[in-house]
Amino acid sequence: MSKRPLILVTNDDGITAPGIRALISVMNTIGDVVVVAPDSPQSGMGHAITVNATLYLEKVDIDGKQLEYSCSGTPADCIKLAVREILERKPDICVSGINHGSNSSINVIYSGTMSAALEAGIEGIPAIGFSLLDYNWNANFEHCKPFVETITKQVLEHGLSDGVVLNVNLPNLEKDKIKGVKVCRQAKANWVEEFDKRTNPMGRDYYWLAGKFVNMDNGEDTDEWALANGYVSVVPVQFDLTAHHAIQKLNTWKLN
Amino acid sequence: MSKRPLILVTNDDGITAPGIRALISVMNTIGDVVVVAPDSPQSGMGHAITVNATLYLEKVDIDGKQLEYSCSGTPADCIKLAVREILERKPDICVSGINHGSNSSINVIYSGTMSAALEAGIEGIPAIGFSLLDYNWNANFEHCKPFVETITKQVLEHGLSDGVVLNVNLPNLEKDKIKGVKVCRQAKANWVEEFDKRTNPMGRDYYWLAGKFVNMDNGEDTDEWALANGYVSVVPVQFDLTAHHAIQKLNTWKLN
Repeated sequence: MSKRPLILVTNDDGITAPGIRALISVMNTIGDVVVVAPDSPQSGMGHAITVNATLYLEKVDIDGKQLEYSCSGTPADCIKLAVREILERKPDICVSGINHGSNSSINVIYSGTMSAALEAGIEGIPAIGFSLLDYNWNANFEHCKPFVETITKQVLEHGLSDGVVLNVNLPNLEKDKIKGVKVCRQAKANWVEEFDKRTNPMGRDYYWLAGKFVNMDNGEDTDEWALANGYVSVVPVQFDLTAHHAIQKLNTWKLN
Repeated sequence: MSKRPLILVTNDDGITAPGIRALISVMNTIGDVVVVAPDSPQSGMGHAITVNATLYLEKVDIDGKQLEYSCSGTPADCIKLAVREILERKPDICVSGINHGSNSSINVIYSGTMSAALEAGIEGIPAIGFSLLDYNWNANFEHCKPFVETITKQVLEHGLSDGVVLNVNLPNLEKDKIKGVKVCRQAKANWVEEFDKRTNPMGRDYYWLAGKFVNMDNGEDTDEWALANGYVSVVPVQFDLTAHHAIQKLNTWKLN
């Protein structure tokens, strides 16, 4: 048995995406890597799981360097299958990404990348989702690598509190333009959808989801502020969704 | 213009499910109802949105009593389309469900029912997800109705704090066996998956997701405790996922 950490790698852009290839190359310098990732892009899947369909898992060899499986399911499915069907022991860390595009602020809710990290967290595995603020398939991930390495090593060294995973976003800037890493809270922001309504050749209307991201939060402790000001943002994220602060007030209602 | 509240109704089991029909019948006693719900079951969709496919919306008449649209997308898509393309003003409340099956504790993460409620919350609409602990299509929802009515009216009267929606689960008990309503926190629980591995007629292996729900939290302030002891559980849920308590510790790490 190797003493190197066992690292589970996944993403939501699909197993051949340049972002996961960059992530794998960094992880190979840190530990023993097993990749279980979707066979096709899964963006916007949120925390979907496959309950009413079959799941396929296929051993693939993409660059001959590590054990890799492509999966017909969602990012959350990949984690479940990796833990139950593939890995012989619980991995020391799970990393997801590098996503092609932002998962900052409210995007965490819609993110397949972060859903995989949360699923790993639910399994008790320290987990990080990484995203680069560049939606291009041919985005350059080189400048991300030193940050990915440092943050991963820090998580391996310190561990993460029970119920907490990290959401890391990297600005799309050259390496020497990035000012450093900031621990942040999720900014209050949302998408204002502007559906693009069209008519198909059969005369039936359909819609494309479009929209504009609106940040309503100028706090300098937010991920949006950090990213806009040249920092890598690190937000600790939890899957206990209870709004504990609201419980006291609800107890004054006439619910019975 | 009616002075009655405008109520947006959706679900994740599909527009013809008995659960949403029960919910609509209660809402018709409270206000003016518009239904925008998926045209087919979407269970386990988490907070998925449709970003790479077209969306269809069709006006349907199921019982002639209210305006209804079936949508080809996810529960979150339904809310976005309702707000941007269908409703002339922001609804006074959004209710989602009644789900055929539990969305208590960690199930909130995988729940399409709650994803619709969260999406409405992100839009600034007071929102509630309702679920009955009975997975049967022919579940009896009659005993749910008085609780659904009371909780909905309380939300209309008091409003909800910014960023908070309610996750309501109802035990599968006769009306006079239900002890009342309890405001709770999300129990710490998870699913231990046991994939059912099979081989298809072409000789290829595939998996069905199966699994056992494991509650690791005996707290009497949890939704699992309330439900197991005959109460309706009400958990306030938030979409700011920041683990604020973890920030201080992360700031001691060597991230720069």
